[in-house]
Amino acid sequence: MKFGFVDESNMVLLTDLYELTMAQSYFNAKMNGIAVFDFFVRNLKKRSYLLSAGLEQVIYYLENLKFSKEDIEYLKTTGRFSDDFLDYLKSFRFTGNLYAVDEGEIVFENEPLLTIEAPLIEAQIVETFIINTMQISTLVATKALRCYSVAGKSLLVDFGLRRAHGTDAGMKAARSAYIGGFIGTSNVLASKCFGIPSFGTMAHSFILAHKDEKEAFTHFLKSYPENSTLLVDTFDTIKGVENAVEAVKRSGLKSFRGIRLDSGEIVKLAKECRGILDRAGFEDTMIFVSGGLNEYKIKEYLDAKTPIDGWGVGTELVVSADLPFLDCAYKLVEYDNEPKMKLSPKKVTLPGKKQIFRNYCNGIIKSDTIELHDEDIDGLPLMKRYIFKGEVQIDLPSLDEIRKKALESFDTLPPEIKDINSDETIKPSLSSKLQEMVKCLKIELEKNLVNRDA
Amino acid sequence: MKFGFVDESNMVLLTDLYELTMAQSYFNAKMNGIAVFDFFVRNLKKRSYLLSAGLEQVIYYLENLKFSKEDIEYLKTTGRFSDDFLDYLKSFRFTGNLYAVDEGEIVFENEPLLTIEAPLIEAQIVETFIINTMQISTLVATKALRCYSVAGKSLLVDFGLRRAHGTDAGMKAARSAYIGGFIGTSNVLASKCFGIPSFGTMAHSFILAHKDEKEAFTHFLKSYPENSTLLVDTFDTIKGVENAVEAVKRSGLKSFRGIRLDSGEIVKLAKECRGILDRAGFEDTMIFVSGGLNEYKIKEYLDAKTPIDGWGVGTELVVSADLPFLDCAYKLVEYDNEPKMKLSPKKVTLPGKKQIFRNYCNGIIKSDTIELHDEDIDGLPLMKRYIFKGEVQIDLPSLDEIRKKALESFDTLPPEIKDINSDETIKPSLSSKLQEMVKCLKIELEKNLVNRDA
Repeated sequence: MKFGFVDESNMVLLTDLYELTMAQSYFNAKMNGIAVFDFFVRNLKKRSYLLSAGLEQVIYYLENLKFSKEDIEYLKTTGRFSDDFLDYLKSFRFTGNLYAVDEGEIVFENEPLLTIEAPLIEAQIVETFIINTMQISTLVATKALRCYSVAGKSLLVDFGLRRAHGTDAGMKAARSAYIGGFIGTSNVLASKCFGIPSFGTMAHSFILAHKDEKEAFTHFLKSYPENSTLLVDTFDTIKGVENAVEAVKRSGLKSFRGIRLDSGEIVKLAKECRGILDRAGFEDTMIFVSGGLNEYKIKEYLDAKTPIDGWGVGTELVVSADLPFLDCAYKLVEYDNEPKMKLSPKKVTLPGKKQIFRNYCNGIIKSDTIELHDEDIDGLPLMKRYIFKGEVQIDLPSLDEIRKKALESFDTLPPEIKDINSDETIKPSLSSKLQEMVKCLKIELEKNLVNRDA
Repeated sequence: MKFGFVDESNMVLLTDLYELTMAQSYFNAKMNGIAVFDFFVRNLKKRSYLLSAGLEQVIYYLENLKFSKEDIEYLKTTGRFSDDFLDYLKSFRFTGNLYAVDEGEIVFENEPLLTIEAPLIEAQIVETFIINTMQISTLVATKALRCYSVAGKSLLVDFGLRRAHGTDAGMKAARSAYIGGFIGTSNVLASKCFGIPSFGTMAHSFILAHKDEKEAFTHFLKSYPENSTLLVDTFDTIKGVENAVEAVKRSGLKSFRGIRLDSGEIVKLAKECRGILDRAGFEDTMIFVSGGLNEYKIKEYLDAKTPIDGWGVGTELVVSADLPFLDCAYKLVEYDNEPKMKLSPKKVTLPGKKQIFRNYCNGIIKSDTIELHDEDIDGLPLMKRYIFKGEVQIDLPSLDEIRKKALESFDTLPPEIKDINSDETIKPSLSSKLQEMVKCLKIELEKNLVNRDA
C-alpha cells in the first residue's frame, strides 16, 4: 500500500468520506428516491469553449462499481458505519441512468456535460470520482484544441507525462490531447492502452553521455536510420545542426526525420537551421520544437513565419497552466420528482432534468438553449442516454472517432470564439419553461426563509 | 484497457518513448557505464522554499521495476526494438544507488532532491517516472506547508480529491498535504492506504434532498450524534445556523461538532455564526470554512480575527493553483567518471556527484552550500544514501515521522522566508571546487565549439 495505486479493485473508495456518511444517513432515513445530478462548468473563465472529455472513463467506472469484501472490511474498521449499511453496500451497484454530451463535443457554461439519474445513494456516491475524471480530461482536451486551433498543418505531440500531476493525469492527458487534435504522445503506456501513436526524439543526457554530439548522433542514426530526430541545442544550436548534417552524411543516409530545438531564440534559430538543412539537401527533414510551449507561443512562432513542422507540447498542456482547474460542479437538480436549487451567493444551479439544443447557421453554431428534458425545441439535442438502468445503451466510439468528432465540432465554432485571445463565448439561453421554474423555486425558497423569520 | 490504470504491473511502461529508444541505442553502442543524474528545481518562482516529498514512492518504483512478459510482447509489436534489446529488458532491474534529501526536508533552488547513480540505461529509463512522482508530491507538500504557516492552531483538512488531476494526483495530494501540516483528508482511499485521518461534513445535495434544512440536519444528527458538521449556507447562512441549533436541541444533544460555511462574506458570517452558537450554549462547536481557500485567504480571514477553527482546502491546494508546475529537471551530471554539463541558454546544470551542506545559527538556517560529494565541508549533510546496489539501505520513516520532520524543518526557516508574501529565498552557494569544475567544463565546451568552427 506504499504507493497507493488506484485500480478496479479499490476505485469505489476513491471518494470523499462525506459521500459515504451522507449515504448512510440516507439509508437510515430510508431516503433512496430517484435523484438527478448535473455535472457542469459554471464559468469558463479563460476559455471561450470547452471540449468535453472523460465520458468513457466515467462509464467504465459506473459499470464496474462495487464494494469488495476488503473495502467493506476496511469501512467497518473506521467505526463510522453500521452493519446494516455495510450489508447494503455488499450488493451496491450503479442501477441508474447516465445522459451525456458525446466526448469530443463543444460545450459552454452551465451546460450539463453529463447527468446522473439514479437512486439517491448511488447518485451521491459517484460524485467525487465523476468530477475527478471529467475535470482533468476536459481541461486538457480543451487546452489541446486551443493548440490545434493555431498549429495549422504542423504536428502536435504530447510531451507532458513527466510534468503531469501523477501517473493517472499522464494517461488522461495523453488521451485528451489526442482527442483535441494532437497526433500522438511520448507516453508509451498511453500508446499501449489507448492506441495513440507514440513519438520520441532524444534527451540532452544522450548527447552528454557521448564523447561529443557527432558521436551521439552517429550512434542514434545507427539504431534508427529511418526514424531519428536529433536534438541539436545541447551546446550551440547552429553547430548542433551542422554536426547533425555531418553525422547523417557520414552514416551514408540520404535523409533523416528531423531535428529538435528545445531552447534559445526559436524564431531566428529555426530559420537558420532550415537554411542549413535545405542547403545540405535535407529539404524533407522536419524541424521539431519543444520547451515551455503553449498555444500563445505556437501562434507567435507561426505568425513570425518560423519554419516549424512539429511541436512537443508538455507541461503547459497537461497541467493546463493558465487555467489549472475548472469552476465545475456536480449538483442535485431533482429529487423524487421535485426540482431542486440552492440559493448560495454566486452558486445558483439550474433545477430539473434538462437537455441542450444547438442551432446552426451554415454549419456554424448560432445558439444553444438549455431546456427541461420534456420540452420540444428546435435544434440538435446534445445529450444522449448512454446508460439505462445500469446497462450501457450505446456502442462507444473509438478514440479516433471521438477525435474526428472533436475536430468536426471545432469547425462549427464561430471565428471569434475560435480565437485564442478572444474573451467572447456563447452563453446558452434558457427555455421559458426553465426560466419560469427557476423563478418559482426562488420565490418559494425565499418565502420559506421569510416564514421562518416570522 | 479502457481506463488505463497504472499499477505495479505496468509502471515501467509509464515512460516517454525516448527513454526506451535511447536505452536501445546505448545498448547497441555498448554504453552502460555508471551515470549520475540529479533531480532538482532550477528556479523556485513563486515559492521561497520547497518541501521535498515523493521519495517513498520513487523508492517503491525503483525496488519493483521490471518489464513483464506482457510489456516485452507489447514493445515487440511496436517494431522499434530488436530481439537482443528485448532480451536484455527481460532481466532489467534497478541495480544502482539512490541518494536523496529526506522527505519532509526543506530545499532550495538547484539543490538535488535526489541523485541516481546507476548503469546508464537504468538511470535513463527511470527519468520520466521520477519527475512525474517528485513534482506533484513536492508541489502539494509545499503549498500545504504555506497554508500551515498561516493557519496557526486552526485545523487544515485536504478536500481536494475531486479537483485533483486524476486519481493518482488525489492520492499523492492527500499524502503530501498531510506531510505539509494538514491534519487529515476527505479521501477515503488515501486514509486507508496511508493511514491519514479522514474527515467529512455534508454536501448541499444532502440539504436539498430533504424537505428542508431542519429535516436534513435532524437526519444527519441521528446518524452521527457525536460527529456532525452541519453545512449551513445552502439558502441563507444565518437562518442555516439557527436551524442547526434548533435541530441539535430538538435531537436532545448537548453539543455538536461543527458548522461549515462554504460561501458568502466569510468574515462577517463567521462572527455572526459564532455569536449565535455561543448564545445557544455551543461554545465548543467548531466553525469550519471551505470554498476556494488558499494560504492568502486563510491569512486574510485570520488577520481579520475571524473565529474559524478549521479549513477545508481543496482545489487550490491540490493543483497548486498559483504555481501548477515546478521548473524541475532530471539531468545527467556525470558519466563514466567524467563530469557533465550542458550549455543551453538559461538551462545550465551543476556537474558532478554532489552533496548539500546546511548551516544553522540558533536553530535557524544560515546558509546552504552545494559541493562535490567527496569534499569535507562544515554543516549538516542533507543527502543520504537510500538505495545501494538496488537494495534499500534505510528503514523508511512512517508518514507521521515524515510529517514531524517537515514541521520541524519549517521551524528552521528564517521569518522572512516563512512569509507567504515574501519573494526572498535562500540561494545555496557553490563550493569553490564545484565553481572551479563549472568554470573548467565551460571553457572546455566552448573551446570545442570554437575548434569545430576552425
